[in-house]
Amino acid sequence: MIRAGIVGGTGYTGVELLRILVLHPAVELAAVTSRADAGMRVDKLYPSLRGLCDAVFTQPDIDNLLGCDVVFFATPNGTAMQMASDLLAHGIKVIDLSADFRIKDVAEWEKWYGMTHASPDLIGEAVYGLPEVNRVAIQQASLIACPGCYPTAVQLGFLPLLEAGVIDAGQLIADVKSGVSGAGRKAEISSLMSETGESFKAYAVAGHRHLPEIKQGLQQAASHKVGLTFVPHLTPMIRGIHATLYARLNTDVDLQSLFEQRYQFEAFVDVLPTGAHVDTRNVRGSNRCQIAVHQPQGGDTVVILSVIDNLVKGASGQAVQNMNLMFGFPEQQGLETVALYP
Amino acid sequence: MIRAGIVGGTGYTGVELLRILVLHPAVELAAVTSRADAGMRVDKLYPSLRGLCDAVFTQPDIDNLLGCDVVFFATPNGTAMQMASDLLAHGIKVIDLSADFRIKDVAEWEKWYGMTHASPDLIGEAVYGLPEVNRVAIQQASLIACPGCYPTAVQLGFLPLLEAGVIDAGQLIADVKSGVSGAGRKAEISSLMSETGESFKAYAVAGHRHLPEIKQGLQQAASHKVGLTFVPHLTPMIRGIHATLYARLNTDVDLQSLFEQRYQFEAFVDVLPTGAHVDTRNVRGSNRCQIAVHQPQGGDTVVILSVIDNLVKGASGQAVQNMNLMFGFPEQQGLETVALYP
Amino acid sequence: MIRAGIVGGTGYTGVELLRILVLHPAVELAAVTSRADAGMRVDKLYPSLRGLCDAVFTQPDIDNLLGCDVVFFATPNGTAMQMASDLLAHGIKVIDLSADFRIKDVAEWEKWYGMTHASPDLIGEAVYGLPEVNRVAIQQASLIACPGCYPTAVQLGFLPLLEAGVIDAGQLIADVKSGVSGAGRKAEISSLMSETGESFKAYAVAGHRHLPEIKQGLQQAASHKVGLTFVPHLTPMIRGIHATLYARLNTDVDLQSLFEQRYQFEAFVDVLPTGAHVDTRNVRGSNRCQIAVHQPQGGDTVVILSVIDNLVKGASGQAVQNMNLMFGFPEQQGLETVALYP
Amino acid sequence: MIRAGIVGGTGYTGVELLRILVLHPAVELAAVTSRADAGMRVDKLYPSLRGLCDAVFTQPDIDNLLGCDVVFFATPNGTAMQMASDLLAHGIKVIDLSADFRIKDVAEWEKWYGMTHASPDLIGEAVYGLPEVNRVAIQQASLIACPGCYPTAVQLGFLPLLEAGVIDAGQLIADVKSGVSGAGRKAEISSLMSETGESFKAYAVAGHRHLPEIKQGLQQAASHKVGLTFVPHLTPMIRGIHATLYARLNTDVDLQSLFEQRYQFEAFVDVLPTGAHVDTRNVRGSNRCQIAVHQPQGGDTVVILSVIDNLVKGASGQAVQNMNLMFGFPEQQGLETVALYP
Repeated sequence: MIRAGIVGGTGYTGVELLRILVLHPAVELAAVTSRADAGMRVDKLYPSLRGLCDAVFTQPDIDNLLGCDVVFFATPNGTAMQMASDLLAHGIKVIDLSADFRIKDVAEWEKWYGMTHASPDLIGEAVYGLPEVNRVAIQQASLIACPGCYPTAVQLGFLPLLEAGVIDAGQLIADVKSGVSGAGRKAEISSLMSETGESFKAYAVAGHRHLPEIKQGLQQAASHKVGLTFVPHLTPMIRGIHATLYARLNTDVDLQSLFEQRYQFEAFVDVLPTGAHVDTRNVRGSNRCQIAVHQPQGGDTVVILSVIDNLVKGASGQAVQNMNLMFGFPEQQGLETVALYP
Repeated sequence: MIRAGIVGGTGYTGVELLRILVLHPAVELAAVTSRADAGMRVDKLYPSLRGLCDAVFTQPDIDNLLGCDVVFFATPNGTAMQMASDLLAHGIKVIDLSADFRIKDVAEWEKWYGMTHASPDLIGEAVYGLPEVNRVAIQQASLIACPGCYPTAVQLGFLPLLEAGVIDAGQLIADVKSGVSGAGRKAEISSLMSETGESFKAYAVAGHRHLPEIKQGLQQAASHKVGLTFVPHLTPMIRGIHATLYARLNTDVDLQSLFEQRYQFEAFVDVLPTGAHVDTRNVRGSNRCQIAVHQPQGGDTVVILSVIDNLVKGASGQAVQNMNLMFGFPEQQGLETVALYP
Repeated sequence: MIRAGIVGGTGYTGVELLRILVLHPAVELAAVTSRADAGMRVDKLYPSLRGLCDAVFTQPDIDNLLGCDVVFFATPNGTAMQMASDLLAHGIKVIDLSADFRIKDVAEWEKWYGMTHASPDLIGEAVYGLPEVNRVAIQQASLIACPGCYPTAVQLGFLPLLEAGVIDAGQLIADVKSGVSGAGRKAEISSLMSETGESFKAYAVAGHRHLPEIKQGLQQAASHKVGLTFVPHLTPMIRGIHATLYARLNTDVDLQSLFEQRYQFEAFVDVLPTGAHVDTRNVRGSNRCQIAVHQPQGGDTVVILSVIDNLVKGASGQAVQNMNLMFGFPEQQGLETVALYP
Repeated sequence: MIRAGIVGGTGYTGVELLRILVLHPAVELAAVTSRADAGMRVDKLYPSLRGLCDAVFTQPDIDNLLGCDVVFFATPNGTAMQMASDLLAHGIKVIDLSADFRIKDVAEWEKWYGMTHASPDLIGEAVYGLPEVNRVAIQQASLIACPGCYPTAVQLGFLPLLEAGVIDAGQLIADVKSGVSGAGRKAEISSLMSETGESFKAYAVAGHRHLPEIKQGLQQAASHKVGLTFVPHLTPMIRGIHATLYARLNTDVDLQSLFEQRYQFEAFVDVLPTGAHVDTRNVRGSNRCQIAVHQPQGGDTVVILSVIDNLVKGASGQAVQNMNLMFGFPEQQGLETVALYP
């Protein structure tokens, strides 16, 4: 039984961590912080947790977290990098769901995130928490940088192709669609139901913060530079990411078999049979990534469809998967939930 | 470990039973039938179940069900009444999610459901599966008539008031709103996204089939006739029922305390604190009913708000709760899921 | 050709006024103000208006409005009461879509709206802009208090019954469901897609600001006090209000005929045939109220269903209907739009 | 004043034609047919049309259409090709919203649509009704093949690039997202709210019927063969298509200027300013196509965003635009509606 703390418990990734952790058999919830709601019972803000969580939000001070074995940061970018070294110095493992430790190139991070990094020295130590790539390193890590939601869906879709070297890595296209919970629980006009319901749009076509993160991961898989056009879209639903990925094949290969073999031992990546299509509802609320592989009209363009729940495999579920690995728990523990269909 | 069968596994209550039962520690899935899809793997139709269910749909014949300890009917009205006596004769318990055994008055049932009842002799034996009213009888029953979704939400809201005799039972109003999954997985124009999305309507104001079922339950609680106006509505969401109930108080009473005491030992009925409002999202995917009690402007009209997930506490979850009681399992086993928010 | 100004052009009622007025054959748009967006082109914020509106948002100063014949206030409560007397003094007619002039009892208004009224002297002069009740007064008015969205739907449903004196006015119930655009274009967590999508809830059961407005109107129709329980709900769609109204009949009456006669000359109130149900989609984007009349099981409870688009007949459309009356234009001019179905 | 008939008046493109035509100043509705609903008043099925349309559905017989000047086919594929020649022989112009006359290569059409063409001789005579390409031919045509919804959005987005020869036409990608009304008003499980709400998926990746139509149009613009990967998606909303188009530039060109010049005289194609993004809500209910042009990170991949309302510019609005051209009416007549936002 380990003791877990959550910094930033009122956002969507925070409450999703709570949904998972209150039923995790090996975890005791030791602290949930919220600057704005300190003093309030967690289940007053989130009545879905009544009877399952008697915690009270506390201030996000180090003192309130010292009793923890692991602390999750479900905070806006810029918070974890302020507090991580203190926690690590006390022997507390840190799992950061924000972007603070995802990019290895500090200058690149500072350019895209518009602030000075507070702990550049920790970046090298941080392990990028994509278990399907870094499982062993995660098991030994003290500081995890959880992947972003878009990067998870896109990387899991492109990895087998890049690792096998069967596509032209210079011209990748990732057309990705996200539910609105990806924008977080923030009071912004652009996330209102009246603004996002019954409508569909692309955004940030000129450049989205997840672009350098995705490229870094793809380049590591390809062992060389990649060219990527990444267009994120907002779709009128709450949860779910659907990545439609395009690449040109440079060789003849059994794509279906390539994907099935790459992920045959992965509990949370599921390659659908030939000809199938994925659907975000089939992973809603679950920690799964489902992938379908297509080669339309037998041409040389491969189309990969990859879906996740942005709040689970794209955030809090993956964070718990990382925690399980770090503490030697079964990787699926607490994450067996079946997707909620319909 | 018991063996369970599901007749009608392709509808929404069928797949919801599957979602719950594949993770239930005391249940092994022995048979899932579907006339239309016999021969197909269940997880081909429902990819959310991949890796969790290797069953194949079979024909809905008695022979395919004889190895079961319990059989759930997730079928349209009129099927369970044809097959139940055979199963019971083989010592197999039957839990019917359809309306076949809900109404004690056969003539009344035949009037509302427009067919001749095939097993009128079994109606007396059937126990109405609302555990909060009939727990002991359910524990000893072989045949359960699971309550309808509207009746569950409305009865749980009115029961404390009627049992205590504090309202005028002659003028009850139940204004109830349902998500569209209540209409089932049937190819009907009226359930299309283009017909039900972004729109709200009442329907069946002249008389809905759940009216006699609700009245029967309320009358039993009140020990006398009740007068009820029941207006169902369709709301543009998939899951959830919100009942707004109105009654006139005939005495001065601490309503909050009345409700809290009535349900203090109920695991699946949660009375919110004074002043709170319920929200269907807080029970989405869970077997819970949440209730809030109001007395606007301190007048003599009481307003009860009661929410459930129509596919869980309003159907498949409640069916499993009944199964747990019938087989002596902990009542909450397999039903601990936290609601999916957001 | 008259010149119209809009104060508060960036909210949903403001942009809805623009949608109507840019095509109104007798209106020229003279000014659109916005404190926050002054200097920006209107069609930059609202690309749906490109090619139809070359206006630029200006500061909401009197000077910018002096060239107008009529000024609409599509502002939060508390603004129109500051500026109306100045405009009126310049001979400019004022149509206020906010609540500032709706309640005749100043003390009552101040209690519900939590502020001191800045122009209590103007309240008597203001005409409540419900044309189906006050058409003649509106034609001669200089200052119109446009009804709220809930009050429009509820009053049009109850009026025929109260005017005819056929119901017990002491126990009215209005169970009303609104789309989320009713909450306005404000950066609030409670209006996010992730908070309001796929969920349904009641709110403000203890007392909503529209309660005194509705009671005032109903009492005028009934010529005596009424007792009303009003429960508003939020439904996961953008536009539309559906009022379900309950009352007890105190006499035998042909309800269908009563409603048809009451509204036979009204262009914007449409009584559906016996047995029909209304649906918000059938009035979406139009200035119509559709009403259906029911008497379930022939009992003494009458159920009235009344739908409007909250932004049109519940706000901006009704405002233009008032304008047409005030300036002697045909009442339907600019408001002939057919509802957008599906 | 011309007399118009609609064959297939009960589907979504049929009722959308009605929404437009009942307010069109130069059109009188002469006949609306429906095999299933013959004898029923149109406004009983579609209460949004009450007071605006007193037509009764008739059988789809030639005799019922002989009084028309123009007949619209809003029918499933395979109907117009049976009836068109008879109508044309009577001097009646035909505007077909189905796919019957869109593909010039009969064999190709028969392969994709799975039936033998009933009027191959008429295919040559039919004019493809994309006014932005074929305006002059449309003005002189008797038989119009209205473009499909996907083809309209995709062609308007790619045309300027192909006509100017500035992209590599061998590797075009069209990632297109549609609202569910595109699937029509048919009783199919796959179009239910419970199946399509809150979920996102690609479909028909192996090959969609609109692929040959799109390629035919693009090839005509390019004056040579093109290579196209077309992936359609279903998005949880009712109306709207968003095409995200990818191509490689083969020269340095001012893209913004290229698009603005190509469409400078087009009333229904609106090129947004540099840097803007399109949003389907801004064209909902209107006949407009809005386009935004991007070149991410200044690379050689161009990204075009193109949105239409699939039922208006993607079907019925474009059909009326064609009618206006054929009869010498102003091209925008009856189509001035502003998009319904929010």
